[in-house]
Amino acid sequence: MKLGSLTGGRDGRLIVVSRDLAWCADATHIAPTLQAALDAWETVAPRLEALATDLAHEAIPMMRFHERQADAPLPRAFQWADGSAYVNHVELVRKARDAVLPESFWHDPLMYQGASDRFLPPRGPIPLADEAWGCDFEAEVIVVTGDVPQGADRATALAAIRLIGLVNDVSLRNLIPDELAKGFGFVQSKPASALSPVLATPDELGDAWADGRLRGILSVDLNDRPFGRADAGVDMTFDFGTLIAHLAKTRSIGAGSVIGSGTVSNRAADGGPGRPVADGGLGYSCIAEQRMVETISGGAPVTPFLKAGDHVRIRMDDAHGHAIFGTIEQTVATA
Amino acid sequence: MKLGSLTGGRDGRLIVVSRDLAWCADATHIAPTLQAALDAWETVAPRLEALATDLAHEAIPMMRFHERQADAPLPRAFQWADGSAYVNHVELVRKARDAVLPESFWHDPLMYQGASDRFLPPRGPIPLADEAWGCDFEAEVIVVTGDVPQGADRATALAAIRLIGLVNDVSLRNLIPDELAKGFGFVQSKPASALSPVLATPDELGDAWADGRLRGILSVDLNDRPFGRADAGVDMTFDFGTLIAHLAKTRSIGAGSVIGSGTVSNRAADGGPGRPVADGGLGYSCIAEQRMVETISGGAPVTPFLKAGDHVRIRMDDAHGHAIFGTIEQTVATA
Repeated sequence: MKLGSLTGGRDGRLIVVSRDLAWCADATHIAPTLQAALDAWETVAPRLEALATDLAHEAIPMMRFHERQADAPLPRAFQWADGSAYVNHVELVRKARDAVLPESFWHDPLMYQGASDRFLPPRGPIPLADEAWGCDFEAEVIVVTGDVPQGADRATALAAIRLIGLVNDVSLRNLIPDELAKGFGFVQSKPASALSPVLATPDELGDAWADGRLRGILSVDLNDRPFGRADAGVDMTFDFGTLIAHLAKTRSIGAGSVIGSGTVSNRAADGGPGRPVADGGLGYSCIAEQRMVETISGGAPVTPFLKAGDHVRIRMDDAHGHAIFGTIEQTVATA
Repeated sequence: MKLGSLTGGRDGRLIVVSRDLAWCADATHIAPTLQAALDAWETVAPRLEALATDLAHEAIPMMRFHERQADAPLPRAFQWADGSAYVNHVELVRKARDAVLPESFWHDPLMYQGASDRFLPPRGPIPLADEAWGCDFEAEVIVVTGDVPQGADRATALAAIRLIGLVNDVSLRNLIPDELAKGFGFVQSKPASALSPVLATPDELGDAWADGRLRGILSVDLNDRPFGRADAGVDMTFDFGTLIAHLAKTRSIGAGSVIGSGTVSNRAADGGPGRPVADGGLGYSCIAEQRMVETISGGAPVTPFLKAGDHVRIRMDDAHGHAIFGTIEQTVATA
């Protein structure tokens, strides 16, 4: 099934959304919010599944689903921990800063605690106060977990995955080097991220969800031009089970935790960073990678970071060309 | 007024607690949880204040308040951002690792996003799976905020402080160096922290709350012996207004965010790290500092990190010797 939240209060109002995203049904009589559903998933999920079946059969009152009216499925969450599972991306971004990738990064996941007190709605603006901060998007896959016990292994972690979706992990590139040097992670350089309009259960995804990875082309458009077409199932060094187990090594994890894949990134056939979409490549899921490639080929970056009015679109289509999770579509606005 | 949460569900049940912590009154008819109260503070706080007045006058049904029955006032929160406002502490801990303190640390606050999906109850065990991780306590002051707009200045940030309390920020010292080297902050080296049994509004604290700092001796006992007696109002380089404004530079902050001071730490009169309580000094608010001083004086640390059965107590007394926020009292348990 697919779940989302209509705007309403700080935590939204839970809805079940039809597979084609055309229709939705109020689910607040089952659980008022998605967090409440996740808190009691074992009893709530079967009732939501029944509602989804009724919706598919048009057997209940239903409403048109408009992505522009959706809040983030979790407008706020108790945890947002973002990995860097596509180590290729980390290597490229480090190269752009003339920093070396430690060998350990290939077997010990990078992960940071992000701010989860507000996820931006899928069509909400990116509120940017200063273009000099170097605003970038990062298109990623996320999962939402149930409770995970301390010390959980990969299999236990995988079994705790409740929902899957997409995120635009907004990043302020020019603030990152100073925060990395402090070693304490990202406080100012990672403002609020935007979630996809809907999240889907693993069973909803069929073959696209396998081995703790989501397979499919993550489409990123910048100002209505194709920017990234990487496959999220390729070059993901650490699957979500491994990422969650990493986070749970020393403590339990609460239901409703949002875990990110890090920026999706594919190597080219020659092992290198490939080419922009405009040059026939798969492109990139963030501006920083494209700037890196421009630096390699031309000596300096060409593509600027985001400025007010710039527009980014992130989605993943199924085999029939329908956006599985809806579309994140944001315009940069002066904060 | 003083607020707390009795155990019940994932978010506890809101209570108002008498000034002397002897009595409490159910407040769930006003707001079911402390988070719900913070979400609508402007309308809810006056009603809670009225309840607190009735409780003080014994004009309503009241119950004995037992700290051992209290959950964390916020059993989970949407944000836990911990500063390092006592730069003295940072300098000492770095010295213990032979690392240099950058000069910028004196004017640019250090802060990390911590895990907020579960705060331990004030009398809950510290679940430790491996003593080799080097488990330590950190006694700190916290504040809980209302909504803070992006770009808020210090005065706006100070005005958004709703509640004040204490935290034991459990730290796994031997996991910290590797995570610091990654630059992404603390994921495995900072497991769940414990909050004090109650939180107090700023007006409740009188002169003890001034200039964005809490004045008073933060008493830390390890295995029933005095370990730390530092004054939280002394040597706090960055006040809470400055810490919150730092966090809000690039994004808004949601109601119910928990902001930490970092380990409370006082310099000695000679500017140095002082002496353990047993040697007539003010002692330390974490084991790591005492080990540092032992290393300086004797060439090697003597005090071991925590092991199963060790017992830590953290509190701050008012002028009459009563614990303002109750007592955090935890025993290390094998996870």
